[in-house]
Amino acid sequence: MAKDIEVGGHSDFHAKDYHDPPPAPLIDVEELTKWSFYRAIIAEFIATLLFLYITVLTVIGYKSQTDPALNTDQCGGVGLLGIAWAFGGMIFILVYCTAGISGGHINPAVTFGLFLARKVSLVRAILYMAAQCLGAICGCGLVKAFQKAYYNRYGGGANELADGYSTGTGLGAEIIGTFVLVYTVFSATDPKRNARDSHVPVLAPLPIGFAVFMVHLATIPVTGTGINPARSFGAAVIYNQEKAWDDQWIFWVGPFIGAAIAAFYYQFVLRASAAKSIGSFRSSSVI
Amino acid sequence: MAKDIEVGGHSDFHAKDYHDPPPAPLIDVEELTKWSFYRAIIAEFIATLLFLYITVLTVIGYKSQTDPALNTDQCGGVGLLGIAWAFGGMIFILVYCTAGISGGHINPAVTFGLFLARKVSLVRAILYMAAQCLGAICGCGLVKAFQKAYYNRYGGGANELADGYSTGTGLGAEIIGTFVLVYTVFSATDPKRNARDSHVPVLAPLPIGFAVFMVHLATIPVTGTGINPARSFGAAVIYNQEKAWDDQWIFWVGPFIGAAIAAFYYQFVLRASAAKSIGSFRSSSVI
Amino acid sequence: MAKDIEVGGHSDFHAKDYHDPPPAPLIDVEELTKWSFYRAIIAEFIATLLFLYITVLTVIGYKSQTDPALNTDQCGGVGLLGIAWAFGGMIFILVYCTAGISGGHINPAVTFGLFLARKVSLVRAILYMAAQCLGAICGCGLVKAFQKAYYNRYGGGANELADGYSTGTGLGAEIIGTFVLVYTVFSATDPKRNARDSHVPVLAPLPIGFAVFMVHLATIPVTGTGINPARSFGAAVIYNQEKAWDDQWIFWVGPFIGAAIAAFYYQFVLRASAAKSIGSFRSSSVI
Amino acid sequence: MAKDIEVGGHSDFHAKDYHDPPPAPLIDVEELTKWSFYRAIIAEFIATLLFLYITVLTVIGYKSQTDPALNTDQCGGVGLLGIAWAFGGMIFILVYCTAGISGGHINPAVTFGLFLARKVSLVRAILYMAAQCLGAICGCGLVKAFQKAYYNRYGGGANELADGYSTGTGLGAEIIGTFVLVYTVFSATDPKRNARDSHVPVLAPLPIGFAVFMVHLATIPVTGTGINPARSFGAAVIYNQEKAWDDQWIFWVGPFIGAAIAAFYYQFVLRASAAKSIGSFRSSSVI
Repeated sequence: MAKDIEVGGHSDFHAKDYHDPPPAPLIDVEELTKWSFYRAIIAEFIATLLFLYITVLTVIGYKSQTDPALNTDQCGGVGLLGIAWAFGGMIFILVYCTAGISGGHINPAVTFGLFLARKVSLVRAILYMAAQCLGAICGCGLVKAFQKAYYNRYGGGANELADGYSTGTGLGAEIIGTFVLVYTVFSATDPKRNARDSHVPVLAPLPIGFAVFMVHLATIPVTGTGINPARSFGAAVIYNQEKAWDDQWIFWVGPFIGAAIAAFYYQFVLRASAAKSIGSFRSSSVI
Repeated sequence: MAKDIEVGGHSDFHAKDYHDPPPAPLIDVEELTKWSFYRAIIAEFIATLLFLYITVLTVIGYKSQTDPALNTDQCGGVGLLGIAWAFGGMIFILVYCTAGISGGHINPAVTFGLFLARKVSLVRAILYMAAQCLGAICGCGLVKAFQKAYYNRYGGGANELADGYSTGTGLGAEIIGTFVLVYTVFSATDPKRNARDSHVPVLAPLPIGFAVFMVHLATIPVTGTGINPARSFGAAVIYNQEKAWDDQWIFWVGPFIGAAIAAFYYQFVLRASAAKSIGSFRSSSVI
Repeated sequence: MAKDIEVGGHSDFHAKDYHDPPPAPLIDVEELTKWSFYRAIIAEFIATLLFLYITVLTVIGYKSQTDPALNTDQCGGVGLLGIAWAFGGMIFILVYCTAGISGGHINPAVTFGLFLARKVSLVRAILYMAAQCLGAICGCGLVKAFQKAYYNRYGGGANELADGYSTGTGLGAEIIGTFVLVYTVFSATDPKRNARDSHVPVLAPLPIGFAVFMVHLATIPVTGTGINPARSFGAAVIYNQEKAWDDQWIFWVGPFIGAAIAAFYYQFVLRASAAKSIGSFRSSSVI
Repeated sequence: MAKDIEVGGHSDFHAKDYHDPPPAPLIDVEELTKWSFYRAIIAEFIATLLFLYITVLTVIGYKSQTDPALNTDQCGGVGLLGIAWAFGGMIFILVYCTAGISGGHINPAVTFGLFLARKVSLVRAILYMAAQCLGAICGCGLVKAFQKAYYNRYGGGANELADGYSTGTGLGAEIIGTFVLVYTVFSATDPKRNARDSHVPVLAPLPIGFAVFMVHLATIPVTGTGINPARSFGAAVIYNQEKAWDDQWIFWVGPFIGAAIAAFYYQFVLRASAAKSIGSFRSSSVI
């Protein structure tokens, strides 16, 4: 919290213990030959499937338990707070579990932000997004299979603009919400910060999960909270109602703009001086 | 989160700071002669006892406080969210406390998954499961002793398929829920990840506890959430009603299948390339 | 989670990086001459004051917001879940803040358990308990001063046996609840575990706080949850009603028995073999 | 938790691995020439903007969902517990994200406390506070733009003394609440504690966020909980009603007094003996 923490990383003493990786190429032919690349795509698929399965099942379960037509106890169910926890908590554990395998994106907006910052190749970014969308569809499909009676009645966990909010408000809410998430992702995966935790950034998943939790607390009443195009797309495919499709573009354009602003802010404002310290590091011959 | 994190562990630089232990033998005669083996079984017994005591007491207390016949305040009690926290939070602290003693399983499905991955011997696995089931019975017995008036009236914390759900749905919910848990356990106890935290995997208990919390948010309305055969068995023994016994098999078959799929996924998909890096490590003579 | 973790600490490789401190003397004259000793007592006083202030204010605020006589919204307030978080969360931050100063007991039962395990001297234990009780009285006094209109009406945050529970049940609930807490404290402050975090056990406060949170979820309906004699005593002194004083002994005898069992369990069951590894450590001349 | 932890930091063995930075000058001309200084001010602005945006949006969304005039379900919304999580959780992630850039104050009271402890220069303190207030105004402005229909109707997230509480009670609640927060900040950023986590105090943001969460649980019914003058000021500017302006002084005087007491307590009571150990460290020639 004090000034001295910040400048520490630039001093001679610490100069050696981290380095920024070079920008990822657009197309990295070598990675296509590695099992670890395909394994990463499988991990993104499974993680997004589990994410949608648990969260949408929580949403449907909550709505069935608080339906006045079925139940006199309107306080039953886990509450909107429980739903926000489900989204944030699943991101926490899934990022924790897949960070060492695929980087733990589980969200096309995160992949897009990291691609803009040249941290993943174009090919990897596209395949990740495809795997995430497919995983989301399968996850929602499982919920529909398990909750036949309730799935469509309770909105299928789909993202829609709530009554009384303009398109601009919904778009704004998605942009800022995704900015909060992707900004946290960039902060948590900064090479400076990871220097001492070289295998996996052990604590990073917790603030990333909390960022998702926070945005849900704030914007569930506005848009149901997307900030993850795969999540919105998967639910729309399985729910397949007109309103969900009409609003779908908001849940792609908003998160992608938010992720782009976060990438820009992080790379050009917060890390602008890093270029110099890397320069001085490379000219030093001590390893 | 970035690609470079993943490949780090395979480079020459890091090659020395972790190693995969050899597979556990089916029967390890030597471990039977050690006090640490019996101590581990005692620790599993006590941990499962405390787990059931706290969680089932929370369930019964919640139901007695929201019973319309007793109380006009339907918002009293800790809510389903509080119940989900009780299960997840207890697993967090009990894994934290017993990880260094017994490995902190507290769940026959976890023990089964780790046995399939050859991380514990067959003898250890069987004795752990027996200790867990016995502990669960004692924990529920304590709750019944403390809550004589309420225990049977409020369902005894037993797992049963809720009305309106088919057997297949209940089984599916248990399989996927246990998959989430055991997949998190494998990720959290990966030797790569533990290399820097050699005594006890300090952060591992938190995502494991969160995995339990998440699955409860999603599946309490479906099955009450088992994902732990000892928990379901202990409650059924003390509650001892027909419905709980009729559904009991779901809470053994489901978790064991889920754990087996997680073990398979982790060992054969995510860690498939690990074999090579171990090979190269062993051939290197530097320690 | 795997067997190999457990045995690691006993191997030659790790033998050097931790040691058990010698038992604390009953009366340590030298510590009485140090400023750090008096500073520790002040820190315990302030921490217990803040603990009672925040938690009892949360209880009174919740009860005033859900009183049907004042408010038609019975779902207002933070809920019993919020109250449980207040107790657990405060212990988390106060243990975090005072661990490096006083050890972060904030609870006579914890001090008693650590005294039995010979981790603090008798003089330190007595002065800590006195500081904790005084701090608790001052913390409750502040709440009463701030909430004159509500404090006595809403029970003053005092611990009392709820209607319908026998003395034995209340005592049992306090014994097991304190066992959970003190067992977590012992696990979290084990020298083996702290070897790598030499200054302050950074992660230890989180499971300790969660242990308090969990026990509150389970036993608020039974006794209001004491597991901290200073907390029960301070509230009784300021509330000063007959029922709170009649039940007061339960909140001293129960926690002290629970702490004693936890100390016994940890020292004689779980750490029994530690004696050998210390022996082998001392005979080794390598530092 | 044991006595030995505390004394460890003073022994010869550890004497070298931390040092207290020299006091910050009142005016540090050199820092004005660095990009990192302006970057820090931008980061404080953005972080406070996001803090107010998410938290006030959560408050307004909760109030619109539980308004009996609009909605029969009084249990809808995230609850006061969700609001308390929004404030605490946002501080957790924002401190995590900005700790390495600006120190992660996001609160004029924290900046004031660190200035008193001579950890930031006067110029930096003033510019931080200006950036925080401006960020808070922009954050609330965004909420008003998004929630035109509801913002003023539901109180605009402004801090006001609740009915039935005296000015002295409100001031006292703000003083003690800010003391809890700033005391936690000092504990978490102690150089002793950071020695092993040299780049960024990785775990520090969690207890700091929890401190904010705890204080909100306790004092939302009293003042709505300020403990952050920028938060109170930004909401008052955008809400702009007489009552919010009349009470505004409480939310500046209270937090500044609380922060001053925390700085005094930490520097002169808890860290009093540190002077000696630094002295002995400096006289030692070993680096």
